[in-house]
Amino acid sequence: MKISELSARTGVTIPTLKFYLREGLLPQGELSSPNQAEYGEAHVRRAALIRALREIAGLSIARIGAIVDALEGGEATYEVLGSAVDSLGGAAAGELTPEQEAIGVELDAMLERLGLPTRPESLARHQLIRAFETAREMLFPGAPVEMLMIYAQPMMEIAKYERAATPGLFEQDPEKTIELAVAGLALFEPIMLAFRRLTHEAILAGQVGEDPTKPKKRPLGKPER
Amino acid sequence: MKISELSARTGVTIPTLKFYLREGLLPQGELSSPNQAEYGEAHVRRAALIRALREIAGLSIARIGAIVDALEGGEATYEVLGSAVDSLGGAAAGELTPEQEAIGVELDAMLERLGLPTRPESLARHQLIRAFETAREMLFPGAPVEMLMIYAQPMMEIAKYERAATPGLFEQDPEKTIELAVAGLALFEPIMLAFRRLTHEAILAGQVGEDPTKPKKRPLGKPER
Repeated sequence: MKISELSARTGVTIPTLKFYLREGLLPQGELSSPNQAEYGEAHVRRAALIRALREIAGLSIARIGAIVDALEGGEATYEVLGSAVDSLGGAAAGELTPEQEAIGVELDAMLERLGLPTRPESLARHQLIRAFETAREMLFPGAPVEMLMIYAQPMMEIAKYERAATPGLFEQDPEKTIELAVAGLALFEPIMLAFRRLTHEAILAGQVGEDPTKPKKRPLGKPER
Repeated sequence: MKISELSARTGVTIPTLKFYLREGLLPQGELSSPNQAEYGEAHVRRAALIRALREIAGLSIARIGAIVDALEGGEATYEVLGSAVDSLGGAAAGELTPEQEAIGVELDAMLERLGLPTRPESLARHQLIRAFETAREMLFPGAPVEMLMIYAQPMMEIAKYERAATPGLFEQDPEKTIELAVAGLALFEPIMLAFRRLTHEAILAGQVGEDPTKPKKRPLGKPER
């Protein structure tokens, strides 16, 4: 198909598609004449993925570039998938402080017990360590890493359910496998977070007293100072 | 305390604290002499929050500014909390397409049944609509909004647990209440996402065959093309 059809199929404008081609996010089409290129289904899929990562997951072009690099390795190995997932972001890796290393030791014991990976360079592990350190400082002084079980358990169940719901994932070519795995991870993250935020909003609304005809439990609208 | 002690207490460098003061993220201290200001516990808490939002949640200065604006309203009302939470980000609001509006109708029915808020300008609701639309296009053609229940249910349970675990939250002054609520929301988001990513990594490692001495279930390392 021509670039105009690629644009119509994916909802990505032609200038944006050209930008993706220049940045190397989208592979070049096959030249059918000196100034006309042909695009295929792989381009449709890739353009949709880039759009989702930008608009839904809110990733920068640099991060998307790192994911595309992982995809273009041409292998759906454990490492390639791991590095694509790491590019979804969150914390930067960087050196851990001695306090963070200590949390890491406690955390690894828990992760091992749960059957979860503990590779030291994993960004997800770094993210857990840093976020927990700060949460403990700001909100739960002295809390053990074990308190994270209330998050670990439901997340593990969700992931297992998701995997069971996509049995054919690895029956496809490796590039498509990683594309779909990354899209699945990235697209349902904002969905999960949105439900948690809405629930907190609902709880607070009940507490703060949304309905002006009902008495509020506490006059929170008025500062106490 | 002086700015040097504020820096020592929060782990934020003096130049960065001065930057926060200039940007209005941190309220000015009380002048004790023409070129010396005094800072208090509210500054410690606020600086820790800004650091957490930057380093752990990865928010931009602009987004943090929006949260601080909400905090400085001086009221812990439903609306103030809602707009602080919205500033945690995800999708931009913007106009919905007719297809997205149709998803919104289906979604609102589900949210109402669950007792979750459906205010049309809520970013969390927009985020759900956009992410689900894309997920359906890319991964689950024709799936009903109802499929999101596998995310809604555990997230609601987590939020209810969190609220029950922080009974004293609203017994504090309104500014502190919102600060803690925002920190709690922001800090545990990366933790939840990390557990899901690690679980998928573990499942894939098992599937792809991490141990080279064991036969792989499928030779995924080799592209089929």
